[in-house]
Amino acid sequence: MSGRDFEGWMGEVQARIEAALARLLPAAHIAPSRLHEAMRYAVLGGGKRVRPLLCFAAGELSEAAPERLEAAAAAVELIHAYSLVHDDLPCMDDDVLRRGKPTVHVEYDEATALLVGDALQSLAFQLLSEIQGDPVRQLEMVRLLAIAAGSRGMAGGQQIDLESTGKALTLPELEFMHIHKTGALIRAAVLLGAACGREMQTKEKAQLDRYAKAIGLAFQVVDDLLDAEASTATLGKTAGKDSKQGKPTYVSLLGTARSRELAHELRADAHAALQPLGARAARLAALADFVVLRKF
Amino acid sequence: MSGRDFEGWMGEVQARIEAALARLLPAAHIAPSRLHEAMRYAVLGGGKRVRPLLCFAAGELSEAAPERLEAAAAAVELIHAYSLVHDDLPCMDDDVLRRGKPTVHVEYDEATALLVGDALQSLAFQLLSEIQGDPVRQLEMVRLLAIAAGSRGMAGGQQIDLESTGKALTLPELEFMHIHKTGALIRAAVLLGAACGREMQTKEKAQLDRYAKAIGLAFQVVDDLLDAEASTATLGKTAGKDSKQGKPTYVSLLGTARSRELAHELRADAHAALQPLGARAARLAALADFVVLRKF
Repeated sequence: MSGRDFEGWMGEVQARIEAALARLLPAAHIAPSRLHEAMRYAVLGGGKRVRPLLCFAAGELSEAAPERLEAAAAAVELIHAYSLVHDDLPCMDDDVLRRGKPTVHVEYDEATALLVGDALQSLAFQLLSEIQGDPVRQLEMVRLLAIAAGSRGMAGGQQIDLESTGKALTLPELEFMHIHKTGALIRAAVLLGAACGREMQTKEKAQLDRYAKAIGLAFQVVDDLLDAEASTATLGKTAGKDSKQGKPTYVSLLGTARSRELAHELRADAHAALQPLGARAARLAALADFVVLRKF
Repeated sequence: MSGRDFEGWMGEVQARIEAALARLLPAAHIAPSRLHEAMRYAVLGGGKRVRPLLCFAAGELSEAAPERLEAAAAAVELIHAYSLVHDDLPCMDDDVLRRGKPTVHVEYDEATALLVGDALQSLAFQLLSEIQGDPVRQLEMVRLLAIAAGSRGMAGGQQIDLESTGKALTLPELEFMHIHKTGALIRAAVLLGAACGREMQTKEKAQLDRYAKAIGLAFQVVDDLLDAEASTATLGKTAGKDSKQGKPTYVSLLGTARSRELAHELRADAHAALQPLGARAARLAALADFVVLRKF
């Protein structure tokens, strides 16, 4: 697959998920308008849509129908979007810039931002419950996303993050935090995408899981590198805030050079995990490269 | 059914749901401990458990198995508990007392309270996805709860509440707010309880829905009366805060006497809705009385 192919595919999926989200979010004229407008502000028109891309790429492995992938990818992206809105609140990271725009609590107000996050989470589960298909599989998807989002997944990772600010973590502790904070939802994106198609073999699922874990950590290592090196303008969010807030990162723990090496090792591991899955895994492989080599 | 019978049944259901919640919430020793401890603090050891009671009472109509009712009731109660935690935050109602104890953000901190609410919502959907039974029905329950909790249900009601503070609402506007803010989840408790048993006829469901709507509004009217009249000590939460915050209430709009009349009219309507459902609706009828006649 050429790089050009991949970029074309990526653009298509991004456009498709943007249209799906615009359609699935309540219209801004429906009461309560301000809440619906703020939900749309939080979700639409921004972001690389890495999780939807992973979801669609994993769907190629199981020959999933695009309409089902659309709803699953939208559900995962809504959970991601809600977590950003809550994470930006003054009592958390207190950030004013996200995807190049004022954060939701700055553009609207804190209480509305709180409710935006709450309502986006509910909507994610509503979408999963409405996908047409095998109901046993659908329920399993609800369960998978609920666990990934909850106290033993993403929300738990945020809590560990809170508690580790200003502390010196060991590498295993840092990894434990990120497996929860970022890794759980990235893994859910991959597994939900695969679950939209034919039933996969246990062995295939295990390979996919290994891929998802590698890519989840790689994503975070690269995020830390970008936060340390890029400017606010290219990131679209406040740069350098990790070190300012005394947050432990891969860069603060391992230094830039070793962090970059680690990202490439994780990328190699992701590729190795895909190897037994054959040609259908090509999009996932290309996404591993995209995640590690991205500059923004 | 004698009053004594009802009180005994109520005590049994309350003990049962308390035990179920204690079992279904992550143990406090599981990492992240502070989050799990705070989730347990937010949910356990308090509250009248009105929604679980409604869920169990509705389950008698459809001869639902207690184990299924337990999980459904727990899911609804987790959504309710999360909404209280977020509602008490400084950016919302800024309250320090709930169920006779310091609110979660006072006992822990704001960021933890935010994550407690987020994680409780995820757990609610996880529980619904794990109930044994007809998967089509389970998915319908996920959908019902997601809609009731979301922007066109409870979270939407909170937003309308935010925007109406300090404003003079008309009675229809006040009703619109409460149908969302409190009514949607109370309705979900009733419908989820019924959905745990045999398939009900469309006509039965319509009667149940009418009951649920009446009881949802009655609950709010009585809440407004109690807020205006009771003391902080008997309420276990800050009394008189509605008028202090300039919030429109039934009492501020209609006065005490007319509000009390309205509560009794809604109770009569709830009874009328149950009438065609026969003897199996006795618990729901008794709950209508309990909701309207409660003093705490």
